[in-house]
Amino acid sequence: MHTDRNAALELDRQDTLAHLRVSFVLREGLIYLDGNSLGPMQACVRERVHNCLEKEWGQDLIASWNSAGWFLLPQAIGGKIAPLIGAGTYDVVVTDSTSVNLFKVLASAITLRPDRKVIVSERSNFPTDLYIAEGIAEFAERGHTLRLIDSVDELDDAIGDDVAVVMLTHVNYRSGAVHDMKKVTENVHAAGALMVWDLAHSAGALPVDLAAADADFAIGCGYKYLNGGPGAPAFVYVAPRLQKVAVQPLSGWYGHKAPFAFESSYDGAQSIDRFLTGTPPILSLVALDAALDIWNEVSLEDIRSKSKALSTLFIKLVEERCGGFGLTLASPRDAEARGSQASFTHDNAFAIMQALIARDVIGDFRAPDILRFGFTPLYVRFVDVFDAVEHLHDILQSGAWKQEKFNVRGTVT
Amino acid sequence: MHTDRNAALELDRQDTLAHLRVSFVLREGLIYLDGNSLGPMQACVRERVHNCLEKEWGQDLIASWNSAGWFLLPQAIGGKIAPLIGAGTYDVVVTDSTSVNLFKVLASAITLRPDRKVIVSERSNFPTDLYIAEGIAEFAERGHTLRLIDSVDELDDAIGDDVAVVMLTHVNYRSGAVHDMKKVTENVHAAGALMVWDLAHSAGALPVDLAAADADFAIGCGYKYLNGGPGAPAFVYVAPRLQKVAVQPLSGWYGHKAPFAFESSYDGAQSIDRFLTGTPPILSLVALDAALDIWNEVSLEDIRSKSKALSTLFIKLVEERCGGFGLTLASPRDAEARGSQASFTHDNAFAIMQALIARDVIGDFRAPDILRFGFTPLYVRFVDVFDAVEHLHDILQSGAWKQEKFNVRGTVT
Repeated sequence: MHTDRNAALELDRQDTLAHLRVSFVLREGLIYLDGNSLGPMQACVRERVHNCLEKEWGQDLIASWNSAGWFLLPQAIGGKIAPLIGAGTYDVVVTDSTSVNLFKVLASAITLRPDRKVIVSERSNFPTDLYIAEGIAEFAERGHTLRLIDSVDELDDAIGDDVAVVMLTHVNYRSGAVHDMKKVTENVHAAGALMVWDLAHSAGALPVDLAAADADFAIGCGYKYLNGGPGAPAFVYVAPRLQKVAVQPLSGWYGHKAPFAFESSYDGAQSIDRFLTGTPPILSLVALDAALDIWNEVSLEDIRSKSKALSTLFIKLVEERCGGFGLTLASPRDAEARGSQASFTHDNAFAIMQALIARDVIGDFRAPDILRFGFTPLYVRFVDVFDAVEHLHDILQSGAWKQEKFNVRGTVT
Repeated sequence: MHTDRNAALELDRQDTLAHLRVSFVLREGLIYLDGNSLGPMQACVRERVHNCLEKEWGQDLIASWNSAGWFLLPQAIGGKIAPLIGAGTYDVVVTDSTSVNLFKVLASAITLRPDRKVIVSERSNFPTDLYIAEGIAEFAERGHTLRLIDSVDELDDAIGDDVAVVMLTHVNYRSGAVHDMKKVTENVHAAGALMVWDLAHSAGALPVDLAAADADFAIGCGYKYLNGGPGAPAFVYVAPRLQKVAVQPLSGWYGHKAPFAFESSYDGAQSIDRFLTGTPPILSLVALDAALDIWNEVSLEDIRSKSKALSTLFIKLVEERCGGFGLTLASPRDAEARGSQASFTHDNAFAIMQALIARDVIGDFRAPDILRFGFTPLYVRFVDVFDAVEHLHDILQSGAWKQEKFNVRGTVT
């Protein structure tokens, strides 16, 4: 059945999550399909940061480390993220960047499997994950190598008894393909290895159950589907059964058992706190803290259901309206196998995305040829999907993307 | 000569830096002698963060990585810190925490001296520095040990040809004692080792000249004398002569030669950028960025001159007014040998500091028995010093600190 604009508007009228959009600051006319890169600001975040500046820092100064709860923000925010990823309240902390947290858990994993010298990952993993694994292998100087597979189908062959740890991103950043967390983790454990999940494109995008999957470690970022603001600090999860034995080399004072005893020798906390390192950036932390409150009002099942409906509608409309213009679906067609995004390849993906952005339809380009569109059910409407595809159709039909201004590459993010 | 309150007020009238105080948000009646722990907010910082929220994140969203210069903030802010520490504009970046940056430079140093297995530091160094060194030594598994000296006088004996790196904090966090950076660095180099300076209590407190001292690496924090806000990101310096050879294991995408090429293999920038790891926390970065503009208006020589005058006056008044109450100077008496603070020991230091804080005289307590007072010439007045000592005298004279409420220890920072 053909979907026209009125049908899209009708879907919005029936949407039980539609009321959440007003929580976000989104300018008139903007169609924002890039929440998988940087989630937008909520009004409550602005207020929280303002209060942190005026009251906590401005008036109370150093006392706020206690009185405003700054010191325990890493644990408090971790506790808010925990239910989104199937973790216990005290099994997650927020601190540092995703890359730094990945370093900690990978270092921890190889230390727990000293006789195994291989780290397995996917070639299509987010590059920084592979770079960090390289950095670890090189620095550890214990003969570790990185074994890259082209697809998770090769995993069974890749995990012999030489593998210490398998590191995968749950939802691929380009295609949006979702791994079967439970099954993969089982296979990895059966081979005697440990499992690290990168949840950068999962947390807040779809239900995740780390406990049910018996995952060993997980990390993920705060600025995509969690809307914590640009460069928001990242989270780190360690399975409760590992928290007393897992050590990590970034052993700073914040992870000490008694950080204010100022002992000259490190005695790490026997808990997730051991994965804390230095003083965290409070302004960025309070923004993330406030951004997470919206999750008290929504179920991840409703989020997932609307997410699948949005991306499915998008794919259907693109194929109906933009067929014959050289676009190829780069995401799984099966909504169950897809995260909260839809990607298409095109030889001129960069210029087409620039032309969309000029019309205030914001997705992003990922080298070499991917147009990536994220669908965040907290604020994206079905009519946004409809309008975005109409803009895409106009740009392709008119050849507007061929203008020189859309083909100039700067420092792209 | 006796200094009375009028004499202190006269010193303020003659102070050529006095006009800078209005840049800071300081509530009426507050005597803030804890800028060495958390510098106060400037009005321009509030405005900059507000603009980042409303315009950059709120309106321009992902585009701000380019249009607002977010992506290059680590380098831009590093360039502002550079002249405060005697570094070249392109030799400093701001990112991560002090502890994480210390990990990077120590790892880099031991990699550059593969045949030497000892890391030397002072037992009285800030604990996190020692903890990070322990973490490195343990993880590297190359037989590294940490050799702690009780005083820098023992340094010559401690640095044999087995020492890879010496790591010292330029200004001691408890006593405020200052190391002779040039002389120590020369001795360390003569022994074939590398030198890492922690400038946490130096940057913005007194002139530092890393280039003249030929230092190899330096790190330091943004939230003390640089007033960047709670947990502001830290800086890292690498000598230009080392930037092409120094590698570090936290090899995230932000330090890649071409971060947006999304290559699957790490190829680090041949510059200070290699010491960047993951996406930095932008709200915290813009606060620090704005906080640093004040340094365009002042010379470090004037800062140092007022700093010495403030702490010298404080010590003189404490000894005049509070003699016989059990206070002992824990800082060097020679102002040249002292950073921008003055510390006294007392058996009841904790309770006395609580009683001072209750009177809005904010210093801090450092275990086990130190009362620490920081003097930040940008906003501390001579009359603040006078009034602080009068409060201290009243508390000691009256025994007010003995009240139970001042003796209850919570989570102290």
